[in-house]
Amino acid sequence: MPFGYNGKILYVDLTHKKIEIKEPGEKWYRTYMGGTGIIGETLLKEIKPDIDPLGPENVLVFTTSVVTGAPISGFNRFSVGAKSPLTGGFAESEAAGYFGPELKFAGFDAVIIKGAADAPVYLWINDGEVEIRDAADLWGMDNAETLTALEEATDKKVRVCGIGPAGENLVSYAALQNDIEHFNGRTGMGAVMGSKKLKAIAVRGTGKLEFANPDKVKEIAQWHREKVKVHPPNVGLTKYGTPGLTEGVNAGGFLPTRNWKEGQFEGWKTLAAEHYHETIFAGRGTCWMCSVACKRRVEADSPYPLNKKFGGPEFESIGALGSMCAIADIAAVARGHQLCNLLGLDVVSTGAVVAFAMECFENGILTAEDFEGRSIGFGDADGMLWLIEKIAAREGIGETLSLGVKRAAEKIGNGAEKYAMHVKGQEPAFHDGRGKSGMAMGFALSPTGADHIETPHDHAFMGDGVAKLFPLGLLDPVEPLKTDAAKVRFFYIGQKAWGINNLLGLCNFCSVPIHAMTFPRLVEAVEAITGWESSLFEIVTAVERGNVMARIFNNRCGFTPADDKLIERWYEKMPAGPLKDVAFDRDSFAECIQLYYEMSGWDKEGRPTRGKLAELGLFWLPEAE
Amino acid sequence: MPFGYNGKILYVDLTHKKIEIKEPGEKWYRTYMGGTGIIGETLLKEIKPDIDPLGPENVLVFTTSVVTGAPISGFNRFSVGAKSPLTGGFAESEAAGYFGPELKFAGFDAVIIKGAADAPVYLWINDGEVEIRDAADLWGMDNAETLTALEEATDKKVRVCGIGPAGENLVSYAALQNDIEHFNGRTGMGAVMGSKKLKAIAVRGTGKLEFANPDKVKEIAQWHREKVKVHPPNVGLTKYGTPGLTEGVNAGGFLPTRNWKEGQFEGWKTLAAEHYHETIFAGRGTCWMCSVACKRRVEADSPYPLNKKFGGPEFESIGALGSMCAIADIAAVARGHQLCNLLGLDVVSTGAVVAFAMECFENGILTAEDFEGRSIGFGDADGMLWLIEKIAAREGIGETLSLGVKRAAEKIGNGAEKYAMHVKGQEPAFHDGRGKSGMAMGFALSPTGADHIETPHDHAFMGDGVAKLFPLGLLDPVEPLKTDAAKVRFFYIGQKAWGINNLLGLCNFCSVPIHAMTFPRLVEAVEAITGWESSLFEIVTAVERGNVMARIFNNRCGFTPADDKLIERWYEKMPAGPLKDVAFDRDSFAECIQLYYEMSGWDKEGRPTRGKLAELGLFWLPEAE
Repeated sequence: MPFGYNGKILYVDLTHKKIEIKEPGEKWYRTYMGGTGIIGETLLKEIKPDIDPLGPENVLVFTTSVVTGAPISGFNRFSVGAKSPLTGGFAESEAAGYFGPELKFAGFDAVIIKGAADAPVYLWINDGEVEIRDAADLWGMDNAETLTALEEATDKKVRVCGIGPAGENLVSYAALQNDIEHFNGRTGMGAVMGSKKLKAIAVRGTGKLEFANPDKVKEIAQWHREKVKVHPPNVGLTKYGTPGLTEGVNAGGFLPTRNWKEGQFEGWKTLAAEHYHETIFAGRGTCWMCSVACKRRVEADSPYPLNKKFGGPEFESIGALGSMCAIADIAAVARGHQLCNLLGLDVVSTGAVVAFAMECFENGILTAEDFEGRSIGFGDADGMLWLIEKIAAREGIGETLSLGVKRAAEKIGNGAEKYAMHVKGQEPAFHDGRGKSGMAMGFALSPTGADHIETPHDHAFMGDGVAKLFPLGLLDPVEPLKTDAAKVRFFYIGQKAWGINNLLGLCNFCSVPIHAMTFPRLVEAVEAITGWESSLFEIVTAVERGNVMARIFNNRCGFTPADDKLIERWYEKMPAGPLKDVAFDRDSFAECIQLYYEMSGWDKEGRPTRGKLAELGLFWLPEAE
Repeated sequence: MPFGYNGKILYVDLTHKKIEIKEPGEKWYRTYMGGTGIIGETLLKEIKPDIDPLGPENVLVFTTSVVTGAPISGFNRFSVGAKSPLTGGFAESEAAGYFGPELKFAGFDAVIIKGAADAPVYLWINDGEVEIRDAADLWGMDNAETLTALEEATDKKVRVCGIGPAGENLVSYAALQNDIEHFNGRTGMGAVMGSKKLKAIAVRGTGKLEFANPDKVKEIAQWHREKVKVHPPNVGLTKYGTPGLTEGVNAGGFLPTRNWKEGQFEGWKTLAAEHYHETIFAGRGTCWMCSVACKRRVEADSPYPLNKKFGGPEFESIGALGSMCAIADIAAVARGHQLCNLLGLDVVSTGAVVAFAMECFENGILTAEDFEGRSIGFGDADGMLWLIEKIAAREGIGETLSLGVKRAAEKIGNGAEKYAMHVKGQEPAFHDGRGKSGMAMGFALSPTGADHIETPHDHAFMGDGVAKLFPLGLLDPVEPLKTDAAKVRFFYIGQKAWGINNLLGLCNFCSVPIHAMTFPRLVEAVEAITGWESSLFEIVTAVERGNVMARIFNNRCGFTPADDKLIERWYEKMPAGPLKDVAFDRDSFAECIQLYYEMSGWDKEGRPTRGKLAELGLFWLPEAE
C-alpha cells in the first residue's frame, strides 16, 4: 500500500450496476493529487462537452486527496465534481466533516459515478466491500431522515453523503450534505446525484492509512494544534465561527444588501455574532481531527424552531438570507439555513435567488400572482422561508427559481435579467467585490463561476499580512480597492494558495496562507504523509494543472472571455457607505483579465497554450484549446 | 545585520576613483538573491545595450548570493557578469574557491565596478575598508606572480581574484582566476577587467555571517558531509575529479574530437583518469568547506614542467586541449591547462580556438606562413602550447585567434567559418549534443552562448535518476537522443535545477539534482541561513527572473531566435562510433526552441511577454522586449 492514500479508485456504473476498482499508480496520484486535479482529469477524459448535465452521460466524481485523513487539523475535505447543471461548465464543490477521511479508511481515494439508475439506489461502502442498494424507502426523505435510516440499515457509525428533496427534484443548485451540517454547496452537485437516482453514499471504514513518517506527521499535527490555540484568526473562528465576520464586513461597506444594491445593512447588529451567540447559539461543531471547531449549533422553539443537530448559519447564510433579503432576524435566518440543509439546497444560491425574486417583486416584474397571492418584498422572513420550500419542491414560482438567477431571469423575461447577479450562471457568495478587487477577480475567473472558495481575500494581505504569501511570491502590501497589474499578480499568486487547499482538501480555516499553518510546514506534512521528496513548486504546479484542466473543460463547453466578468452591479457605483461611489471600470477590468491570461500562459481567447500544456506535462492535451 | 548576507553592495567607480556602499534592502535581496538575478538587474539598469564591452561604460559585477559562505559543501561560488566581449550579450561566469565567502566575511555581498582607470590599479578590500591602489608593478605579471605580490602587499591570508596577461591584452575569452586554480572562465570577463585596468581584487575578511538558525545550518552541513562520503557520484568525484568522466564520455561516443568532427578519440586512454592518476597526479584541491575535494593537482619535470600549485586539468581541459586537438598526451594537456591558468585564458574557448586553427591549417585556410613558418595540424602538442602563448600575447596569428572562433573566422575568411563551432559567439564545452539532446538545448538557449554550466545532463536522468527532479516536475525517464516535446520539458525543468546553483552560487558537484543534496534540504538550508519562510517555488521563481532578465538583455543587444541554435556540426551526421549517423534535424530542433519559448511565456520572437514580467513582479520592465 502506498503512503497516505490507498491507490484505489472506485468506479460505479449505475446503469449497468457494475463496480470496478482501478489502481492508476503512483505517478497518476502524484500528477493529479486530489480535488481539482482528479476531477479535471476525469471530466476531460470521460465527458463529451455537449452532454446534458442531468443525463446519464454526466460523471459524478467524489474525491479526496493524497493527504486527506491525516490527523492534522483541516486535512479532512473532499471534493465533488461533474459538469454543472447550474453553470453548464466545470463543477467542483468541497465539503468538510468526516466523510472524506472515512472514505479513505474504507479503502478508496475516490468514487466515480457513471450512468444512472432507473430507480433510487444508495451506495454502501463498507471497508472495501461495495454494494449498490435499493433506496426506494429513502426517496423523498430529508437529509436528517436519510441519515437516521442509513444508520439503521448499515452501521451506527456510518458516514453519509447524500441529497435531500431538492436534489431529487433536480434543483440546479441542490447541494450534497454529510452529517447534517457539512455541505458540498456550490455548482448543483445534488441535482447531478439526483439525476442518477443516487440518494446517498454510505461509508464505514475502520482501516488505517500508512504514513511514510508517522512520527513527523504526529509532530506536525501537535505543532499545528498548539499554534491554532494562539493564532488570532483561528482563535476568532473558535470563538464566533464565520459569523464573526459579519460586523467587519458590514463596517467595511461590502456586506451585500438587498440583492447587491447596497454594501451595508442597517439591521446588521441583530445578525452579527454577538447577538447570534446571545440568542440562538447552542454549541460548537467540528470536523475530523480539527481543533478550530468553527461550526455553530443553534437551538430555539419559537417563532422559528431550530434543531441543535442540523447546524447553525455561517457568515454566508447570514449574507444570503439576512442582508441580501434585508431580514434582520438571526432566528429566521437560522431557520432558513436549517431548511436549506434538510431539503438539500445551497444556501448561497438560494439566498441570492430569494433576493432576486424579492427585487423582481418590488419592481413589478413578478407579482403576487406569481407567489400564490402573497407579496414578497425585501425584509419578508416568512416569505423567504416559504420560497425555500417552493424551490426545493419546484412548485409554482419555485419551478422557475430552481434554475438559478440566470436562467430564471431568462424565463421570466420582462427585464428580470437586470436583477440577476451571477458569473457564469453561479450566484456569488457574499463579499462585494467593489470592496476587494482581488477577490472580484476570483469571482470572474473561477472555473466554477463566482466562487468564494477559490479566491484570496484582499484584506488579509494588507500591511505585514502579505508576508505570508512570500513563499509564493514577493508582494507589496495589498490595497483592496486597486485594480492594476500588481493586483492581478496578487490574485494570481493568491489563487495558487487557495488552490492548494482545494487540491489537497485542506480547510481554508486551518491552512495557509491566513491561518495556523505555514507553507514550509505544509510541504513537510505532504512529504511525511506520502514519502515523496516534494516541494511547494510541485504542489503549486499540480494546482495549476487542475486549474488549466478546468479551464479547458469550460472552453470545450463554450465559455469565452466574455464570461470572465463581474456581476453587473459591481460596474455601478456603490450608493453609500465607506465605499460610496466605488465601481469597477469595465474596460480596465477586462484588461486585467487579459493580463491574467498572459501570466497564466493562456492566449487572448483564454485558451491554455500548447506550451503551458507541455510545461504541465499534459501531453494528452497537445494543442491549445 | 540581516541573516546570511551583509546587506551591503560595494560600488567602485574607477574613472572617478569613487567608492560607494549601497544597502538595497531585504526585498531586493529576496527578489534577486544572487548570481544571475543580481547581474541581470544590474546590467539592465546600468548598461545601454549598444555600449562597447571593452569601454568604460561596461559594468563588471562580482556577486555572491544570500547563502554564499554558509559552512555547507558547495556554498562557495560567486558570479561575475558584464556585457560580454566574446558574445556581445549577457555574460555570467561562476567560479568556486574561497574568494566568494571571503568577500562576504569582509562585509560585502557584491562588488560592482564602473568606469575604467587610466593606469593599472587593484582593489584592496580589508574587513569593510576599501582602497583603490596602484598596480603598475603588477601589470604584466601572471596569475601566480600577482598572488604572491599581493600576499606581500596586503595580508598573507588575502584572497585574490585577478587577471593575467590575456586579460590585460583584452583577449575576448580571457578568464579571471582566484587562488591559481579556480576560474571564472567563460564569456571573457578577464578582458572586461583588463579594459578597466583593474588587475585584481584582493580581499581579506575576518567577519562572521549571522545565520537565522545556526544549529540547523550546522545540522544540514553535517548531514550533507556524511551523505557526500557515500553518494556514488560524489565518491567518484573525490576519487578522480572531473577527469573521471573522460572514459565514459568517449565510450558513449560524444567526446568531441578534432574540432567536433568525431565523437570518439582513439587516444582517449592516455587522457583518461587512470593514466592521469598514474602519471602526473600529485594531490587533491578543494574549496571553502567542501568535503568533495574534486580539484586535482599535478606535478612533473619533463617533458612538460607542471607545478603542483597551479591546478591540474579538468575534464573540460582534457576535451579542449586533448581530444579536440587530437593530443593523446595528458602531460601536454596539463601543461596547456597550467599555461591557460597562469596567462588567464578560458581553457574551453582556448582549446576550441586551437582546434579550429588546426582544422583551418589542415584545410589550407591557414598556412605555415600564418604560424611563423611552422605547421600546426591536429595532434601537435608543442604547436598547441605555442599557440596558447601567442593568443595570450595577441601576437601574430594570436591577434586573430584572440577574438574567438566566430570573429576569427570572419576575419580569416576564405571559408574558415565552416570550422568555427560556437553558439552566440561562445565555443561550447566538450559534450557533443548529438549524444545528449537536452544538453544541446541548453547550449542553444543559455543566455551566455554554449555554456555547460547552465545545462542539465541527460544521462543523469535515465531510469530512476529522473526521480531526483520530481520536486520540480514529474518526468518520464530521459532518453538522451530524443528531440521532442517531452525532451523540451526535461530541459525546461532541468534548466531550473541548474539555475538554482548559478543563482545561489552552489557547486553543481555538491548540490541538486545529481549530487549529495536534496531539494527539500536545500530549501531548509536557505530558510535556516536567511530566516525567510521560503520555498522551492520562491527560489525557482528567482531563477526564472534571472533568466528572463538575461534574455531581455540579449534581446536588447540584438540577439534573435536565429541565435538560439546549435553548432553547425551537430546538424551533420556523426561519422562513426555508438552515435554513428545521429544528427539534429534543423527544423524540428527549431520547433523545439519555439515550444520552449511558449513554455517560458516568451513570444515567437523569444521576447518575455508582459504577462511573464508581471508574473515575476518585474514591473519596472512593463512591456515585452
